[in-house]
Amino acid sequence: MIKKAFMFMDENFLLESETAQSLYKAVKDEPIYDYHCHLIPSQIAENKTLPDLADAWLAGDHYKWRMMRTMGIKEKYITGDAPNYEKYLMWARTVENLIGNPLYHWTHLELQRYFDIHQPLTEKTAPVIWEKANTLLQTPELSVKGIFKKLNVYAVGTTDDPVDSLEHHKAIAQGTAPIGKTETKVMPSFRPDKALSINQAGFQDYIATLEKISGITIKTSDDVLSALENRLEYFVSLGCRASDHALENTPFSVAPNDQIDKIFKNAMTGKPVSEADAEIYKTKILTELAKLYAKHDMIMQLHLSPIRNINPKIFSKVGPDTGIDAVHDPQQSKNLAGFLGMIEKDSSLPKTILYTLNPKDYYPLATIMGAFQGEGDPGKIQLGSAWWFCDHRDGMEEQMRILASVGMLPAFVGMLTDSRSFLSYPRHEYFRRIMCNLIGRWVENGEYPHDMEKLEKIARDISFGNVKRYFG
Amino acid sequence: MIKKAFMFMDENFLLESETAQSLYKAVKDEPIYDYHCHLIPSQIAENKTLPDLADAWLAGDHYKWRMMRTMGIKEKYITGDAPNYEKYLMWARTVENLIGNPLYHWTHLELQRYFDIHQPLTEKTAPVIWEKANTLLQTPELSVKGIFKKLNVYAVGTTDDPVDSLEHHKAIAQGTAPIGKTETKVMPSFRPDKALSINQAGFQDYIATLEKISGITIKTSDDVLSALENRLEYFVSLGCRASDHALENTPFSVAPNDQIDKIFKNAMTGKPVSEADAEIYKTKILTELAKLYAKHDMIMQLHLSPIRNINPKIFSKVGPDTGIDAVHDPQQSKNLAGFLGMIEKDSSLPKTILYTLNPKDYYPLATIMGAFQGEGDPGKIQLGSAWWFCDHRDGMEEQMRILASVGMLPAFVGMLTDSRSFLSYPRHEYFRRIMCNLIGRWVENGEYPHDMEKLEKIARDISFGNVKRYFG
Amino acid sequence: MIKKAFMFMDENFLLESETAQSLYKAVKDEPIYDYHCHLIPSQIAENKTLPDLADAWLAGDHYKWRMMRTMGIKEKYITGDAPNYEKYLMWARTVENLIGNPLYHWTHLELQRYFDIHQPLTEKTAPVIWEKANTLLQTPELSVKGIFKKLNVYAVGTTDDPVDSLEHHKAIAQGTAPIGKTETKVMPSFRPDKALSINQAGFQDYIATLEKISGITIKTSDDVLSALENRLEYFVSLGCRASDHALENTPFSVAPNDQIDKIFKNAMTGKPVSEADAEIYKTKILTELAKLYAKHDMIMQLHLSPIRNINPKIFSKVGPDTGIDAVHDPQQSKNLAGFLGMIEKDSSLPKTILYTLNPKDYYPLATIMGAFQGEGDPGKIQLGSAWWFCDHRDGMEEQMRILASVGMLPAFVGMLTDSRSFLSYPRHEYFRRIMCNLIGRWVENGEYPHDMEKLEKIARDISFGNVKRYFG
Repeated sequence: MIKKAFMFMDENFLLESETAQSLYKAVKDEPIYDYHCHLIPSQIAENKTLPDLADAWLAGDHYKWRMMRTMGIKEKYITGDAPNYEKYLMWARTVENLIGNPLYHWTHLELQRYFDIHQPLTEKTAPVIWEKANTLLQTPELSVKGIFKKLNVYAVGTTDDPVDSLEHHKAIAQGTAPIGKTETKVMPSFRPDKALSINQAGFQDYIATLEKISGITIKTSDDVLSALENRLEYFVSLGCRASDHALENTPFSVAPNDQIDKIFKNAMTGKPVSEADAEIYKTKILTELAKLYAKHDMIMQLHLSPIRNINPKIFSKVGPDTGIDAVHDPQQSKNLAGFLGMIEKDSSLPKTILYTLNPKDYYPLATIMGAFQGEGDPGKIQLGSAWWFCDHRDGMEEQMRILASVGMLPAFVGMLTDSRSFLSYPRHEYFRRIMCNLIGRWVENGEYPHDMEKLEKIARDISFGNVKRYFG
Repeated sequence: MIKKAFMFMDENFLLESETAQSLYKAVKDEPIYDYHCHLIPSQIAENKTLPDLADAWLAGDHYKWRMMRTMGIKEKYITGDAPNYEKYLMWARTVENLIGNPLYHWTHLELQRYFDIHQPLTEKTAPVIWEKANTLLQTPELSVKGIFKKLNVYAVGTTDDPVDSLEHHKAIAQGTAPIGKTETKVMPSFRPDKALSINQAGFQDYIATLEKISGITIKTSDDVLSALENRLEYFVSLGCRASDHALENTPFSVAPNDQIDKIFKNAMTGKPVSEADAEIYKTKILTELAKLYAKHDMIMQLHLSPIRNINPKIFSKVGPDTGIDAVHDPQQSKNLAGFLGMIEKDSSLPKTILYTLNPKDYYPLATIMGAFQGEGDPGKIQLGSAWWFCDHRDGMEEQMRILASVGMLPAFVGMLTDSRSFLSYPRHEYFRRIMCNLIGRWVENGEYPHDMEKLEKIARDISFGNVKRYFG
Repeated sequence: MIKKAFMFMDENFLLESETAQSLYKAVKDEPIYDYHCHLIPSQIAENKTLPDLADAWLAGDHYKWRMMRTMGIKEKYITGDAPNYEKYLMWARTVENLIGNPLYHWTHLELQRYFDIHQPLTEKTAPVIWEKANTLLQTPELSVKGIFKKLNVYAVGTTDDPVDSLEHHKAIAQGTAPIGKTETKVMPSFRPDKALSINQAGFQDYIATLEKISGITIKTSDDVLSALENRLEYFVSLGCRASDHALENTPFSVAPNDQIDKIFKNAMTGKPVSEADAEIYKTKILTELAKLYAKHDMIMQLHLSPIRNINPKIFSKVGPDTGIDAVHDPQQSKNLAGFLGMIEKDSSLPKTILYTLNPKDYYPLATIMGAFQGEGDPGKIQLGSAWWFCDHRDGMEEQMRILASVGMLPAFVGMLTDSRSFLSYPRHEYFRRIMCNLIGRWVENGEYPHDMEKLEKIARDISFGNVKRYFG
């Protein structure tokens, strides 16, 4: 083992052994398959140029907003109308205090990789960095297309509503968008959360929109499914490989069809729907969608255990996705196991990725997953990479150690950014360093043979090979 | 601290400091007291010879089956009718990918200790290893009796139903079984799960069997207890020292006796029993059993937080205990504390070992335990060693660190295999290395004095001395 | 990184790198702000002299009692009438077995700092240590005043009932108590648990006492609040800066006022109050108290997830706070988020410190906290330092790593003893060493720049600067 003393974030950042360093060399140039993110398709299509570092970093990044609020900074400089440079200075003042936080490493990896800036961002260095970075942001090398090329981005999976026209995906695929021909695949993902939100405002309108765009009259829950399958087929025709569901926990409340349709009818006539009734409706829709995903060889992604919009003051001012979400702690195992079991009974379980926002769920999820692995597909069911509040050095290591201890790490499909930011790709580098370091530690410690050929294959598979095979 | 670089699983495997290495030397030859396992008594009695590595490793080991399924291997090669050698090759292909998984270490410790094979098992080395190991498996040194002697197994606690005749235990104890006289004690354990499963199929038949074998007419819940005590006394007469209970969580729902007997009568006449009613019945039976355990100076083992048979497809094909169980996440503290408190109020709490399958329960369990420690018995209540999905390097270290931080590590009764495999004894070595390494790290770091006499006593007690004293 | 081999608890105890050692030098002489403890005000006022080591260590310390019970020691030598020296010998025999337990380190830090005794406490060394320490305990240097001075205690926050007269706080502040003028501020904290315990014995009497001391007639829940505010103002006039609430979990059950007052009236007329009704009452009182805390610029402390007095046998003999509490595991996120949200909607959220006894709550709490940070106050909402059963090396490191990963470590208000013991101040040293070691590791590993000026500021702020600013 090599123990560094200082040399801030140099080439051997997080690589604490020769084996780790050697492994990282073998994977650093592997392409990036960012299979789940929140980039805005229109901005990709137009080949957006980022106006300045404030826009690049602070325009939509609620991870950073939370930290700025923790500094006690006024909302004006966070989501308000302060000039961009002032917002940026506030961020610089904040970042100095993020010792041990992934934002510290993300920020500096981005400065290093995109702008060749290797000094720490502080209030003092902020002005010089602002000038240098903003100049470079105007060059084609740092347009969306330039970033994709520079970072070797093989594919990007956006997150889209079933009623979306996918016009930008189409234009990008056909090479008719301003971005022109690009080697990066831009794939839609199917996220039908609104079709499941039967007890939330806007449900009736949403169903009306779904009816219109699918051309299918919706009177029953089966009609909802027909309309969704119609859209699913359209999504698949444009390269969609995965769906995505955001759930506090997995619905698992089975009821006969006439009861479900009564609940649906009530909802469509504006009657209030109880939590229990909503769960019944969701159980059916999600179960049947899972079967459709299997039918179309799609991947089902379940994102479990968040609690959202918990600060009503900020929510009323700034809206959702503004840094006011948190980690939830419901029981997960019984419902999730029941849900997967009900689908697998019909041999209809699709490839599935299980994410949780609460690390206490890793053992339940990783072991439930192990009970549903299937013939033919290595790692058919996946424990998703450490997500959101868990997406940091300790969190990623915890997720991989538990996965290795109760499952099979070499079958892992690895990292995704889940990001809204075009600059966020170095998070894949961050992940790869942590993964190589973990494997290197085991090997140097005599816990696995020092067979570099095998080890490099494992590291490359986790970096790119597995996800490419998994998404097909 | 010594930092190794490579030398795969050599004599200093997992021993990262000189203190750890020195401590391990002091405990490596201590006998093994495997107080809880799932070995089949008839196979011990007949002094079974393992036909080949496939039988030895794959015949009943659902840990391995899960990993083979994760590789996408067809069920035919796992639990099906494929030839043994083909199954073995599938396992060899799987094991290469188990970096960071305890199965990797268990497999290679077994190859080293039983067969003196020190190369890694891979698809390439599989044929040579198959030949060498199978030849040795036919020698008396690797019959059950040979293994017990070779690994210095002092005692083995099997897991038995109250209605079991214990004929094999009797024959082994009397030296009349084919295995002949053996220095290893083979003790039955009392696992009356079926007598508690009032809301599961087969309950009536089970009670009928219990009635017949005990000779006690069963009309009420008190009769159930009388019949169970009758069997308990029989078990004790054959050396039984411990009971065992598998529970999702601890029942704690107290009701008057007439209500309990009404529930029992309903169950015996085939009426369905609700979850709530079942909990009432279980609370009484388990509470009263606990008092009987105390009366007979027996140890109560509670295994908490599993969820079983969650994959209906595999369950219908292959049955229970086939790798389709997982970690559950119910609340544990209130019921467990209430249950133990109710018994201790009458000063009737027996020695108790609390296991959990969910590491999130370690803090509740270890601190509840601390509130029930009692006069006279050091470590009367125990936090069971990291169990099943937690039984790996990180899991054992986590269990011991939390136990040390909120309790008293030197009172720990230590490791058990919980295994169905005759080759699994090197898991005790694995545990001892991890335990010595943990203690060594503290000492080398200046956190505890470098008093080797005291340290060796602690390590030897955790390896063997405590459990021998505890089981009496 | 420096790796020690032995040298038990020397000057570089827990400081594994040069950066850590250097940082610790910069903070070791910072004052101690012990903002939450359970010292008895009258004993401070009288400038108590501790008669001997048994009294100092064992008179009220249920942490130690638990460990002595784990050793199987008879209650007579723990809380009974055995002579002090015999109790002390029993403790010495126990402490030898506390490898990996914080009590081992606390005990030896206390021996080193107060008595300049550097040998380990064992049964053998116990007599010599007893003599030497007891002699020193009689000197003015180790009276309460002496300890405050020796350990540089800037402030102490006791825990007091709203109906308390605070006579000792007054006398200490005025310099009229036997302790005389002292530079250590002794501040009361406002802990109105009894005013919330509507479904517990003694509630009516408590309300009567509150009525008398406040001079406010109490007929309704609003009257309870008026009386409490009256006392709060009195507390504030004597330097009170913080409140404190002990809660299994956060109450969050909102109901109209007339329903609440009906519940209150029922309770006052001796009718039984259901759990659900109690929760409704508690929700109102706690919500409105929070607003009062904000109004008076006070800090709200919530202590979550304990389960108390679970051993009825010891409880009936020895009473509460005797080592029979444990870690609870209820869901926390939804109620806590709802409760804080309801208050923040009116912009009335006070500074808040969230403690939990269950480490599984750190992610929910730390992320809920992040959603309520506010303009103006850096670190307005705090994740409390690792509490009680979590207050050990691994526990503190876990709390700080999670805090750093999802929040901002440099805004942390740091350590408190929560102790009943006048000798417990070296726990601040223990915390500072662990904190400096954690930061040092990151820096030596290249994860944060080696900027000693900034690092020392961070370490000093966490040791003293933040809490001084936070408490104002």
